[in-house]
Amino acid sequence: MRKTDPIKQQERRRHILDAAAHCFAEHGFHATSTAQICERAAMSPGNLFHYYASKADIIEALVASDTDDIRSRMQAASAAPDARQALREWVDGQLALYQDPVFVRLGMEVLAEAVRNPRVHALVMANEAERKTGLLTLLEAVWMGQAAPQPLVAMADVLLLLLDGVFSRSVVDPAFGARAAADLLGETVERSLPPAALAGNRAPRRPQAGRGRA
Amino acid sequence: MRKTDPIKQQERRRHILDAAAHCFAEHGFHATSTAQICERAAMSPGNLFHYYASKADIIEALVASDTDDIRSRMQAASAAPDARQALREWVDGQLALYQDPVFVRLGMEVLAEAVRNPRVHALVMANEAERKTGLLTLLEAVWMGQAAPQPLVAMADVLLLLLDGVFSRSVVDPAFGARAAADLLGETVERSLPPAALAGNRAPRRPQAGRGRA
Repeated sequence: MRKTDPIKQQERRRHILDAAAHCFAEHGFHATSTAQICERAAMSPGNLFHYYASKADIIEALVASDTDDIRSRMQAASAAPDARQALREWVDGQLALYQDPVFVRLGMEVLAEAVRNPRVHALVMANEAERKTGLLTLLEAVWMGQAAPQPLVAMADVLLLLLDGVFSRSVVDPAFGARAAADLLGETVERSLPPAALAGNRAPRRPQAGRGRA
Repeated sequence: MRKTDPIKQQERRRHILDAAAHCFAEHGFHATSTAQICERAAMSPGNLFHYYASKADIIEALVASDTDDIRSRMQAASAAPDARQALREWVDGQLALYQDPVFVRLGMEVLAEAVRNPRVHALVMANEAERKTGLLTLLEAVWMGQAAPQPLVAMADVLLLLLDGVFSRSVVDPAFGARAAADLLGETVERSLPPAALAGNRAPRRPQAGRGRA
């Protein structure tokens, strides 16, 4: 009996998902055939079907794999020695992703699929829940029990709404641009951080009543 | 020779676009056949093709028709006697649209198509430009030459980013909900308005340097 190498299996799966992501981004899920994915992955259909039973399986694996990536990135960010910097870098990383045409095209395909396909919808909601939980954990690390001017979940919601807005803007209004997005998000991030002088200071401070409602 | 009635022609076109919108929302553009659109519109293919030569034509007409709607709504809002109230109502109207599953599904399909189809992309960018120009004109009517705490185009950008974020959130995080979106957008709208006491007062006032950067 042939021994299977789990690392190699993992690499093969990642290779197939990468090939499929490019095909889906270029032609859309429905206009992509498994034959095209095989060609791009330089694999026989038999070999591909050994890893994924269908095109639908590949779509679902793509979303699930992105959710895993989000979890690892968010865990690393929350454990970083400088949580403030980790938050800034996470936002910059998201904005950089939205400059990647394959990510944007695939993301739009996934959203369009999610509204019609309950399995993909469930995976997309789980993906977003991971993102929101991760961001909330990161904001908790940033604030370290200090009183924030608004609930952290509200801060997370605003950041996520703006990021999602930037994501669609890259399609509907490309002139808005990476620079404008970075400025706008950067300002919102800074407003989501405790005053710099207190960074690393775990002493509780008085809540700033009414802040942000000038 | 048979006389064509332009009003009736317009109605027939609107009827076809409505039928197509429902089919596209349910199955996606690529999985929808013109036969399905004919069935839903209760029309023969010959009759349908008299109005639109292809499925691609229908997709493009859907986006162009939405652009026309945006233009009329925005012109009406900017000419309203109470521009402040018109801005609030426009935002509420957008949020209500995002609760309509056909609008959201179709919108996601259009975005996914725009990233691959240059003609649809051009129409989507024109649609967004109309929305942004309209919102800017409405903000100008609201501020009536008074000094605003930030450029009106930046206010428009933030509102549009948040609205786009709410639009995708209705798919990725339905628990976020209409109420949370209305609260958040309402707060941002109020921050985008001159102080209530000055409403309708055309007298110039001093710019509030640094406001919004507390």
